Amino acid sequence: MTRDATYLDYNATTPIRPEVLDAMLPYFREHYGNPGSPYFLGQRARKAVERAREQVAALVNAKDPQEIVFTSSGSESDTLAISGAAWSKWEESYGRTKPRVVSTPIEHDAVRMTLVQLKMRGFDRALAKADEYGYVAPEQFEGLLTPETAVVSVMHANNEVGTIEPVEGIAALCREKEILFHTDAVQSAGKIPLDVQKMGADLLSISGHKIGAPKGIGALYVKRGVRLSPLIAGHQEKNRRGGTENVPFIVGLGAACELALKDLGDAKKQQRYESFRRLLAETAARIPDCRLNGHPANRLSTCLHLSFPGVDGHALVIALDLAGICVSSGPACSTGSPQPSHVLIAMGMEPELAQGSLRISFGYATNDEDVRRLAEALPGAVEKLRQVPAAR
Amino acid sequence: MTRDATYLDYNATTPIRPEVLDAMLPYFREHYGNPGSPYFLGQRARKAVERAREQVAALVNAKDPQEIVFTSSGSESDTLAISGAAWSKWEESYGRTKPRVVSTPIEHDAVRMTLVQLKMRGFDRALAKADEYGYVAPEQFEGLLTPETAVVSVMHANNEVGTIEPVEGIAALCREKEILFHTDAVQSAGKIPLDVQKMGADLLSISGHKIGAPKGIGALYVKRGVRLSPLIAGHQEKNRRGGTENVPFIVGLGAACELALKDLGDAKKQQRYESFRRLLAETAARIPDCRLNGHPANRLSTCLHLSFPGVDGHALVIALDLAGICVSSGPACSTGSPQPSHVLIAMGMEPELAQGSLRISFGYATNDEDVRRLAEALPGAVEKLRQVPAAR
Repeated sequence: MTRDATYLDYNATTPIRPEVLDAMLPYFREHYGNPGSPYFLGQRARKAVERAREQVAALVNAKDPQEIVFTSSGSESDTLAISGAAWSKWEESYGRTKPRVVSTPIEHDAVRMTLVQLKMRGFDRALAKADEYGYVAPEQFEGLLTPETAVVSVMHANNEVGTIEPVEGIAALCREKEILFHTDAVQSAGKIPLDVQKMGADLLSISGHKIGAPKGIGALYVKRGVRLSPLIAGHQEKNRRGGTENVPFIVGLGAACELALKDLGDAKKQQRYESFRRLLAETAARIPDCRLNGHPANRLSTCLHLSFPGVDGHALVIALDLAGICVSSGPACSTGSPQPSHVLIAMGMEPELAQGSLRISFGYATNDEDVRRLAEALPGAVEKLRQVPAAR
Repeated sequence: MTRDATYLDYNATTPIRPEVLDAMLPYFREHYGNPGSPYFLGQRARKAVERAREQVAALVNAKDPQEIVFTSSGSESDTLAISGAAWSKWEESYGRTKPRVVSTPIEHDAVRMTLVQLKMRGFDRALAKADEYGYVAPEQFEGLLTPETAVVSVMHANNEVGTIEPVEGIAALCREKEILFHTDAVQSAGKIPLDVQKMGADLLSISGHKIGAPKGIGALYVKRGVRLSPLIAGHQEKNRRGGTENVPFIVGLGAACELALKDLGDAKKQQRYESFRRLLAETAARIPDCRLNGHPANRLSTCLHLSFPGVDGHALVIALDLAGICVSSGPACSTGSPQPSHVLIAMGMEPELAQGSLRISFGYATNDEDVRRLAEALPGAVEKLRQVPAAR
C-alpha cells in the first residue's frame, strides 16, 4: 500500500512515534471518560491529562505543570498567546486603549495572520527588522517597545531557514519594560533545549505533530500570574481554554515531550543530525550557484534551506516526489500560494530566487539511506529542471 | 484493568465506536503526511480529509461538502460561528457599530461564555425567554431581532433536559430579517435527523465525541456565502480555520457521521432508546416526589433528566459511581461548580431542587443490562441519601 517514502519534510509534520501511539491507544479504547466527570471513568482520564501536563512542563522547564494549557495546535497556541495578551491588556485599561503588539517579519503565518486580525480590530502593530540570515537582533526592538505594548512575539527557531533567534536577549528587554514575551517554539521544541525560566518567556507555544505526536494537539506555556483573555471560552483548563479535553492526544503529547527530552540528552543523536546536514550541504555546494540560506551559526541541525537560481522550487518538489522523496519548497500551510515566502523576502532575497527554494528537514526516524537517496537525486533533478525552459 | 462500567452519561461523552478507531488507525501509522504538502504522502492525507468532509456534509444534508469546516470541538465551532459572525458584521460596517447577538438562557456554556466575552468587547447581547420545559418559542424572539443583529444562536436540543427547540421557526424569523441563524446541534447530532436546508440554518455546530468519534474534533456547517471572521487565522480550511488539519480525527468524524446517519434510519435502534427511557421513567415515577424535567413531547429519546427534592445530585452521582454506574448531575464541563445549572434556573426551578438533579443518557453501545442495573440501583440510592442529614 505505502510507497517506500523517503520522508525529509519533518518541519511540515512528523510521523507519530510508535511509543506515542501505544500510549494513546488505551484512551481511545477503555478510558473514554470525560475528564470533567466525577466518576471513576472521568477521574482516570483526568489523571492522565495531569500526568501529561507534567511531561510537557518538564520539556520546557516550567516551574509548575499548571502553567501548561493544552490547545488543538501550535496555531491555536500562538493565537491564544498574542490575541489573549492583547485583549487582556485592553480589558485592564477598561477598554480605553487598544494596545500594541510587536513582532518580526519572519514569523509563522499563525502569528502573522493573528497580527493582521488584531490590527483590523484596532490594535497597533510594529515589526522589528530581520537581517539577511533571518536573524532579528535585540537592538531591532529598541524604540518599538512603548508603554502601550501588550506583548512581543518572536519565534524561537524559524520554520523555513532554521535560524535560531536571540529570544533570551529580547525577553530581557521586555522584562525591563514589563511587557509580556511570547515565543513560538513550534520548530525548536525537541530540536534544541527549551527552558522558559532561563529564556525569560512568559508565553511559549509548542505543537504535537512537529515532535512525533499527532496533528491536532498543542500546548501553551503561560507563566503563573500572566492573564490571557480566552480564545475559546469555557471551564476547562482552569477557564483558559474551553472544549472537552482531547485526552488521547494530550497523553500522546506528554509521551512525545518525554521522548524528546530524552533524545536531547543523547549526544549521538544530535551529532547524527549534524552529519546528515553536513552531507546534504556538501551535496548542495557541488550544484552550481546553489545558495545555503539561514544563519551560519545560530541554526537548527535538523534542516537546511537551499535556493537554486533558475529553478522553480515547486517543480523541484514534484520531481523529487516522483522519485519517492518528500521535501518542500516552503511551509506546507501555504503550498500552492503563488507568493514567494515572506520570510525570504524579509531577508532581502529576490522574489525570483525565493521561489527557487527547497527545504529539507529530518528527525527521529531519518536514516542514512534517506539522506543518501536525496543526496543522489538532488543534483540531477536541479540540472534537469534548469534545462527545461521556465514555464512561469 | 477496567472495572465493569455501566456507562449512562452519553451526553457528557461517548466511547469511540470501534469502526471509527479502525478508520483512524492508518492515519496515525502510515499516512502521516501534512494535507498541505504537494507530494504523495500529503495528497493522500488531503484525499482522506475531503472524503470525511463529504460524510459530515451528508449527516447534516449540506448542499456542498465545502460548507463544512473542521474544528477541534463543538465549543470551538460555537465560538467560531457566533464570534465570527459578529466580528464579520462589524467589519462590514467598517467598524462603525458593534452588532447585536441574540440567544437563549439555556445554551451550553460554549455559547453562553462566548456571549459574555462579546459583551465585554462592546457587542450587544439579548436573550429570549425559556419556558418551564426549557423550550424557547419563536415568539420569544419578536422585538429582539433589530437591524443591528448579526446572528441568532439557539441550540437544537438541550444537553441537560433534552428539550428540542423549534429551530425551524426561529430560523424563518431570522431569514425574514436577513439575520444569520446558528444552531448548536452538538446534542442532537446522531439522535434526530439534521437537515440544514430544511431547518434554514446558516451555521450549525457538531462535536465528534458525542457521536462515537474522539474528543478533540468538531465541525461547523457554514452555508455558502456566509462570511465569518476566523477565530484561528490561517490558510487551512479555505482560510476559515488555521492549524494543520487533524487528519486521523477528521477521518474518524467522517466515519462516525456515516454510522450515525445509518443508525438514524434504523427504526429498531430508535425504538430501543424509547424503551430504555420508558423503563427509567417508570422507575423514577415510583420514587417519591421525583420530577421528570424537560419538554413532554419535544425531546430526545436518548436521555432523561430527574430531580429529587432533598437529595444532593452530586452525592447521588458518587453513590451510583460506587456501584459502578456512571451518570451525572449536570454537564461535565461544570462539574464541581457550586452553582445550580443555569438551564434549570432559566426554567424557573428552585436552586435547591436544581441541585438535586440527575441526568441519564445513553447511546449506541447501551444494552438492556446497563439500563436494568441503573433501574435497580436508583431507588435505593435516593432513599439512602434522603435518610442522611443534608451536609450542605
